[in-house]
Amino acid sequence: MTAPFSFTLNTTDGMARRGAFTTPHGTVQTPAFMPVGTQATVKGLKPEAVRAAGAEILLGNTYHLMLRPGAERVAALGGLHTFMNWPHPILTDSGGFQVMSLASLRKLTEQGVTFRSHIDGAHVTLTPERSIEIQLLLGADIVMQFDECLKLPAAREDMERAMQLSLRWGERSLRAFETAPAGHALFGIVQGGDDTGLRAASATALTAMPFHGYAVGGLAVGEPQAVMLRVVEEVTPLLPADKPRYLMGVGKPDDLIEAVARGIDMFDCVMPTRNGRHGMAFTRLGPVNLANARHADDPRPLDPDCPHPAARTYSRAYLHHLVKANELLAGMLLSEINIAYYQTLMAGMREAIAAGRFADFRDAVQSGWARGDLPPVP
Amino acid sequence: MTAPFSFTLNTTDGMARRGAFTTPHGTVQTPAFMPVGTQATVKGLKPEAVRAAGAEILLGNTYHLMLRPGAERVAALGGLHTFMNWPHPILTDSGGFQVMSLASLRKLTEQGVTFRSHIDGAHVTLTPERSIEIQLLLGADIVMQFDECLKLPAAREDMERAMQLSLRWGERSLRAFETAPAGHALFGIVQGGDDTGLRAASATALTAMPFHGYAVGGLAVGEPQAVMLRVVEEVTPLLPADKPRYLMGVGKPDDLIEAVARGIDMFDCVMPTRNGRHGMAFTRLGPVNLANARHADDPRPLDPDCPHPAARTYSRAYLHHLVKANELLAGMLLSEINIAYYQTLMAGMREAIAAGRFADFRDAVQSGWARGDLPPVP
Repeated sequence: MTAPFSFTLNTTDGMARRGAFTTPHGTVQTPAFMPVGTQATVKGLKPEAVRAAGAEILLGNTYHLMLRPGAERVAALGGLHTFMNWPHPILTDSGGFQVMSLASLRKLTEQGVTFRSHIDGAHVTLTPERSIEIQLLLGADIVMQFDECLKLPAAREDMERAMQLSLRWGERSLRAFETAPAGHALFGIVQGGDDTGLRAASATALTAMPFHGYAVGGLAVGEPQAVMLRVVEEVTPLLPADKPRYLMGVGKPDDLIEAVARGIDMFDCVMPTRNGRHGMAFTRLGPVNLANARHADDPRPLDPDCPHPAARTYSRAYLHHLVKANELLAGMLLSEINIAYYQTLMAGMREAIAAGRFADFRDAVQSGWARGDLPPVP
Repeated sequence: MTAPFSFTLNTTDGMARRGAFTTPHGTVQTPAFMPVGTQATVKGLKPEAVRAAGAEILLGNTYHLMLRPGAERVAALGGLHTFMNWPHPILTDSGGFQVMSLASLRKLTEQGVTFRSHIDGAHVTLTPERSIEIQLLLGADIVMQFDECLKLPAAREDMERAMQLSLRWGERSLRAFETAPAGHALFGIVQGGDDTGLRAASATALTAMPFHGYAVGGLAVGEPQAVMLRVVEEVTPLLPADKPRYLMGVGKPDDLIEAVARGIDMFDCVMPTRNGRHGMAFTRLGPVNLANARHADDPRPLDPDCPHPAARTYSRAYLHHLVKANELLAGMLLSEINIAYYQTLMAGMREAIAAGRFADFRDAVQSGWARGDLPPVP
């Protein structure tokens, strides 16, 4: 018998929380960053490299996987863990966000969303019940409720309508999840745009429902960082302390550290791999654009003090060359370096919270970014 | 003091040869296949993965590297081995072949070739002296003479002119190489197109010059396999037994096994990585096109008996999905699987020659390819 999903809160330091949750595929230390494996692969990394970079859990996209290769197919092949050779925990999103951002000809009703596939134009319907079914076919350790996600800024009436609909879809997601195998978890998603009252109403209603964890959704969709952080710090005090809190689709390294300071436990974002494919590295010294000609003759590694080998092994000149030559290895190395940097940052936060010195850690990390990259080679 | 380049012929089995050569960066067992690292990277593989796949030497392209990042820059950064983090032997070509196939507005004179860069249109001149200088700046363990390479079919008078010019450029390459540091080797290149007499004249003239090894160039440029193998078997008896023989730009697995049967020791080709990026895997069962829909629901690995983990770990269904989804990981895994297959094939040939059973090995391998891929899933 599989043990039920469980979350342990070990320590707090201000609002920052140090904990862990346990799933059928293993335990994840929090605060945690989940690399995104959109199409059953974290772009540019073998799964063992994702693990070696420090990741304990990754995110799969319901929208992409339902369209290709298909949830029933993945289930017949043994589930997503087997399919992509990632025997560690997986969280899947509900598809709601990608329907908004990728699909065309959407038609939204109380029942669900009908849209055309961005791959082959096929008509597809996604409902709370089907989203949960797909996520369980994939075998996700953590399943997300189906929700409606708006871009910001949005009119208050639209935000309220979407929030209320998401609440009703949350209830339907819970009912659809009742027959799930033991050990899987279902998270509710707080919506309400950038409106304080709507967010509070959403959080209050959701926390009355028996979810295993709570996400803050509908952020990192165009609003300034200050707005995002204001919503986070309004919402987290309304969430139960004994369940994990997940800020969806976030973000830059500074977003992570500021959201952890406001009580968030989990994150996902494509930024480490997407920016890596575009020649950008995240480092202790701030972001470094390897396409810049200043690196062309620089024999120094990206960061000699980085725990990840690729950041210490290859010269900036070589990385610059790979980027300019549009070589696959550029995206491979920079994506891996970035995933590893994010994981190192999370590990640093976990250690600092446990030691009661999170504020000092945050200052030190942000000062490093503010000082910026190495001076040019003399 | 670095030991001089040396070649040892251990065993022969028919015309097939089992040997090894030693360079400043290590020893290479022959027959050997050299993966191609065109732009200072074997496309889609980290250098440690190239080594783990069994490669002991790789090829760098003078033409590409002189244009970007530039030979003087690579030298200032410690040479190609350091630059690309490949501490093992490297052979560089002379640039002659790529000038023919990639550059525009070529002007060929006795002195050399002037052309426009395919990257930025810059006017560049390559001579035997500059080609050798570039290859030594890169730090190649094995340097190739500068030659003129024609496409086939070609008129006999063109083949004769190019062959004679390549002989004179070979002499100039030797003179330019006189001041090379100890340990580096210079190979001459037999030209003469598909003409028996021209090839013999080229081989006879070159073997009178003190090269460390001999290449057969100007093949795999459009001619049928039978023509290529006929030229190889005409040329190899004219080459000294105590020096390595390199068939440039070849080839498919069957080309390798047939050329080893005719006395060739070394190969290079982009096919394992290029075909890998296009969804094709080389296996014991022949080539497998992973883009084919027959693989979409196939849980079996590509080849459960392959020594390389990636060929045993991932299902055909997953590889098919990655190819269809145009994911980086498709090219990464298939390129690595293909490099490993080529290396396994070479290792099999070496073992068979040493055991005096090369003909049986060749039959068994070719029978495996002829039987073809696995039957469909029942």
